Amino acid sequence: MADFNVNILGCGSALPTTRHAASSQVIDLRDKLYMIDCGEGTQVQMRRMHIKFARLNHIFITHAHGDHCFGIPGLISTLGMLGRNGDLTIHAPSELKEYIQTIVKLFCQGMPYFVRFNPVNTNEYSLVMEDRSVSVYSIPLKHRIPCCGYLFVEKQREPHIIREMIDFYQIPVRAIQCIKQGADYVTPEGKTIPNAWLTRPATPARRYAYCSDTGYFPKILPYIHQVDLLYHEATFAEADAARAYETFHSTAKQAATIARDAEVKRLLIGHYSARYEELTPLLDEAKSVFPQTCLAQEGMSLSI
Amino acid sequence: MADFNVNILGCGSALPTTRHAASSQVIDLRDKLYMIDCGEGTQVQMRRMHIKFARLNHIFITHAHGDHCFGIPGLISTLGMLGRNGDLTIHAPSELKEYIQTIVKLFCQGMPYFVRFNPVNTNEYSLVMEDRSVSVYSIPLKHRIPCCGYLFVEKQREPHIIREMIDFYQIPVRAIQCIKQGADYVTPEGKTIPNAWLTRPATPARRYAYCSDTGYFPKILPYIHQVDLLYHEATFAEADAARAYETFHSTAKQAATIARDAEVKRLLIGHYSARYEELTPLLDEAKSVFPQTCLAQEGMSLSI
Repeated sequence: MADFNVNILGCGSALPTTRHAASSQVIDLRDKLYMIDCGEGTQVQMRRMHIKFARLNHIFITHAHGDHCFGIPGLISTLGMLGRNGDLTIHAPSELKEYIQTIVKLFCQGMPYFVRFNPVNTNEYSLVMEDRSVSVYSIPLKHRIPCCGYLFVEKQREPHIIREMIDFYQIPVRAIQCIKQGADYVTPEGKTIPNAWLTRPATPARRYAYCSDTGYFPKILPYIHQVDLLYHEATFAEADAARAYETFHSTAKQAATIARDAEVKRLLIGHYSARYEELTPLLDEAKSVFPQTCLAQEGMSLSI
Repeated sequence: MADFNVNILGCGSALPTTRHAASSQVIDLRDKLYMIDCGEGTQVQMRRMHIKFARLNHIFITHAHGDHCFGIPGLISTLGMLGRNGDLTIHAPSELKEYIQTIVKLFCQGMPYFVRFNPVNTNEYSLVMEDRSVSVYSIPLKHRIPCCGYLFVEKQREPHIIREMIDFYQIPVRAIQCIKQGADYVTPEGKTIPNAWLTRPATPARRYAYCSDTGYFPKILPYIHQVDLLYHEATFAEADAARAYETFHSTAKQAATIARDAEVKRLLIGHYSARYEELTPLLDEAKSVFPQTCLAQEGMSLSI
């Protein structure tokens, strides 16, 4: 099965610590890289995880808080120094357009590639980007400023060929691609073999949802229903639920409640407040509601 | 003797590596902190070195290349979240004004303190800032864009009291401060004791010079003559001297030549190109010209 990995570059929150880096993830899907959020220090985290700069073409930013976007200037400068040619597209709420434009104007004169800005609608679920491998949708979230999560939906894959039937009918290799596309096979004698005899349905397309930053917001449930993996912020422990409410963040238990109610397969929590040196209590609180939970940590790579 | 320390937060150059952080230093002088350059990741380096955010009031930026200033947005945001009240002054070439203003406008609404911008003249040696502890001067450097180094000159300290003489004349404690300021002492009998009998001259004021980024530029010699410590960039080894010349950087040997000709007491080299995994050759090349050289490294704290 083709790669679909989520690499955790940073899962801390706004205040800097030596334990966690600011938010950033890189999705590795069929050998292309898609970044979600780009907090300060992201480019060094890429180096640390041996993530190739050249394979990155799209960056998705959730909102205009520094811990989610202050790594962009360094990264786009570095890509220029590395001699990049192809466009880089930054998909982000329109609040970030002036920031990106100012950085490019002041620091990226004569850079060998172009930075495109694609404004993202944070108010409704909508298609942000698609290519041959993936469709990416925005997921409206509830935060202090306009903010959206992102849903990565792998493009439908080809059906599986039933090797025994291909051999039985002595179907030539040149016909296989058409059969994968849904065609029946006609034998040299003129007999039609229905496609359904020759193939099994494709593995369902995998889906990954990233929901940070957000307060507890059940309106997202239909968009993330039964995703293979959900990353949901869990800034606070239950004891600090009032603080979570005030700041439009979630507790670990709220993240787990969303995961349970959306019937997702697995939950990954992160965006930990700097106040917690030890994260086991957050994990325990989440697991009490949704057992298939794990803690994000820098350097982690999860296969979907 | 009062503290005068140089803390190395980062001494790498433009391309990110896991071995070095981007340029930043913090001068600790009489319990106040002064930052020079603020590359991406500086705030985490401060945490790592246990440098108190609250004691920092002045940031000096050498030039508008990202590896010297992309840590500013994160740092000023963090200072706001930590509830800072007092002004923060950023002294920098005027090219950086729009950058700072844009960041403050887009990311620092409602912050509890004020960020002042002080444009620095990079074309001539001139006073940038002074307070009760230090005078800071700009040092014109030779780089691809306007760039200056900074000279930190400790304010003249008080003369030393000669304890034996104070005891001999039974001079009361309340008179000591006046004597430190240069006053003679008049005994109750009306006899004048000259100040020179009671004091020894103050220790000469200490000086630290930071010169990065720059090509080999002997015009700086008069400004850094006999400083206690010189930090001079040494981006390249001698084998890459042509590259140094093209990019307006220095080799380690050139840095040492400047140190020797300025008769400085000690030389600290840094701003290493990402191409060198091993820095001993740079150190050896520098020492062949100026033996009192050492390699900067992250986490180092030097007493001046």
